[in-house]
Amino acid sequence: MKSICGVSGVRAAGKKEKKYGLALVSAEGSAAGVFASNLMKAAPVRLMEERITKGRLSGVIVNSGCANAYTGTRGMRDAQEMAEIGAGALGIDNTEIGVASTGVIGRYLDLPLIRRQAESISQSLSRSEAAEEAVAQAIMTTDLTQKHALVERETFAVGGVTKGSGMIAPNMGTMIALLYTDAAIEPRELKDALRTATTRTFNRVVVDGDESTNDILLCTATGNAGRVAPGEFAEALEECCRSLAVQIAADGEGASKLLEVVVRGAPTEEEAAVVARTVVGSPLVKTAVYGEDPNWGRVIAAAGRAGVWFEPDRVSLTIEGGGTIVPLVDNGTIVVDLAKAKDAMGGKKVVFSLDLGAGNATATAWGCDLTERYVEINGRYTT
Amino acid sequence: MKSICGVSGVRAAGKKEKKYGLALVSAEGSAAGVFASNLMKAAPVRLMEERITKGRLSGVIVNSGCANAYTGTRGMRDAQEMAEIGAGALGIDNTEIGVASTGVIGRYLDLPLIRRQAESISQSLSRSEAAEEAVAQAIMTTDLTQKHALVERETFAVGGVTKGSGMIAPNMGTMIALLYTDAAIEPRELKDALRTATTRTFNRVVVDGDESTNDILLCTATGNAGRVAPGEFAEALEECCRSLAVQIAADGEGASKLLEVVVRGAPTEEEAAVVARTVVGSPLVKTAVYGEDPNWGRVIAAAGRAGVWFEPDRVSLTIEGGGTIVPLVDNGTIVVDLAKAKDAMGGKKVVFSLDLGAGNATATAWGCDLTERYVEINGRYTT
Repeated sequence: MKSICGVSGVRAAGKKEKKYGLALVSAEGSAAGVFASNLMKAAPVRLMEERITKGRLSGVIVNSGCANAYTGTRGMRDAQEMAEIGAGALGIDNTEIGVASTGVIGRYLDLPLIRRQAESISQSLSRSEAAEEAVAQAIMTTDLTQKHALVERETFAVGGVTKGSGMIAPNMGTMIALLYTDAAIEPRELKDALRTATTRTFNRVVVDGDESTNDILLCTATGNAGRVAPGEFAEALEECCRSLAVQIAADGEGASKLLEVVVRGAPTEEEAAVVARTVVGSPLVKTAVYGEDPNWGRVIAAAGRAGVWFEPDRVSLTIEGGGTIVPLVDNGTIVVDLAKAKDAMGGKKVVFSLDLGAGNATATAWGCDLTERYVEINGRYTT
Repeated sequence: MKSICGVSGVRAAGKKEKKYGLALVSAEGSAAGVFASNLMKAAPVRLMEERITKGRLSGVIVNSGCANAYTGTRGMRDAQEMAEIGAGALGIDNTEIGVASTGVIGRYLDLPLIRRQAESISQSLSRSEAAEEAVAQAIMTTDLTQKHALVERETFAVGGVTKGSGMIAPNMGTMIALLYTDAAIEPRELKDALRTATTRTFNRVVVDGDESTNDILLCTATGNAGRVAPGEFAEALEECCRSLAVQIAADGEGASKLLEVVVRGAPTEEEAAVVARTVVGSPLVKTAVYGEDPNWGRVIAAAGRAGVWFEPDRVSLTIEGGGTIVPLVDNGTIVVDLAKAKDAMGGKKVVFSLDLGAGNATATAWGCDLTERYVEINGRYTT
């Protein structure tokens, strides 16, 4: 198994017809969620924010192709009806189903299609690799790759699938993540662990700086593996989320390279994260990475506009790629060898490490280069 | 005349050799400036922030090709030497010269080149259209077009040249603007008018969300035309700045269309401006405009993440282009005719008007579409 079907108590099914996908997952347990902060949050997000307060889910239904966002009161009724369809297909209580949608904003759900798809796949729920792949595929929109993660510990596992490749920014971007664990965790404990993991992983991915109306991350703990130490669970959850987050960054729309920015020497982790996200999201840094152009001044300029105070003269910067680390700035002094720096940009992953010389906190952010392909994809998404 | 040479008391000269340009402008009078807020602000910016406090300039020297940014104490000495070169070439006091640089970050100035260029053009200072064109050309980097504006009133004029097409964001982006008026204005009054005009024009242009280390806007009032009413001057200055700001947006790197976003019905002008800038800077909105794809939900999603509170159900949105206005959302209800909306996107200018239904304040922001060409330009800028 690669992801959710590696967790005891989870059964899955999915189907994709052209742009329109549907996924069903059955898993009973305590549950928590993280949701879009966009003022225009979609109907399913508003519905789930309310329902998750119960701290329990028995299943999830997700569609792709239509976001059910900016659809007013009709959108809310549609989301409720989609929940009923999912609950019916899974044979569970209507108040214990998670609902998520992703796709074009400002369109109404095609409920007859969703009903037909749900009925057709409800018979094939299973614990197989094919089933988890069908779910990962069903929730994709502009993603090019399925995104799976499975972290296995001695006594328990955490597995997840996610989607997202555009409209990705701090505050989760456009993503749906379905996470499962067989550890037994109370809803409150699960919520806390999920918030921390999200802050350190999904919220540190920037593809294009746009932020979605539809983000939903749901985590269900089936409890089949019994109690585990909270610290151990939190660590495994974060590892699972980090793996999924990096996969989102690497599959950023049009991406040819994964970009990682590590900020050290910051006064606080939050400030380190702000600088890391600003650099990783800078269009000028992203295009330079694409062009394998060691124009490191853009990294410095982006860090300088992040709104975090540090001494420009105490900054150190390196670039890492293809197995070598090349120093660019050492304690405020330019030390770059441009030819070597260019060489380090030749591979599929480029890492900038920036030491602010202003403290001991560290944070990492992930993104990707900005290519002509991003423009192509997004210039023609609805038509 | 098109710009600065239309102002009494201004003489200009400029020269460009490949990527390396130099401009000299002679004009004595009271002066004020607005500068980059980036923590990594360049040496000439730091020098001018200090010198402008005197409230007086007799001339300006500007180079393009090297930003003299992130160059430490050597950079500060270089900026001072560049000031001396300019003052010598113009025959003015070394404390009354404005200095600005634009180009690649993290490189030292080629002072022998600057000295040679300054000496060669100092003989040709003149009040001609060719001279103002030479200045506008000399300060360009990735700009494709010269940017001139001249606002003529009955008794006075305001003229300016500017450069800027990438790394353009609120807080002035990478731009240099040289503004002149023959109205007699006290330094303090000039500074206030300049701040207001900048807030409403240059600070509402977003090309790529990156913010520069090198922004300098300098305005000199020669006084040759005598006193004018402060309100009348402020209005003319704002008109001149708006013309230049829109030219920057239209010449955004790789741009094929000018994008204007008008936000109405906001609680305050500042909140209207935040929403307008967020929409105009959204990569997803920008690519949709490029693709002439009426994916208006991206406008709504961007507005929703701006951090300004309003009722999603009270929003109205129209798109305007090619002489027609097409309603998209009316008071929270989707009313779009997608074919008509697509038609409205066919021209060189696309306007989204968003009414938040939350007050009476208005603001406009300008930007451009995001095209493959932006990626090409910025993937290969230093090499």
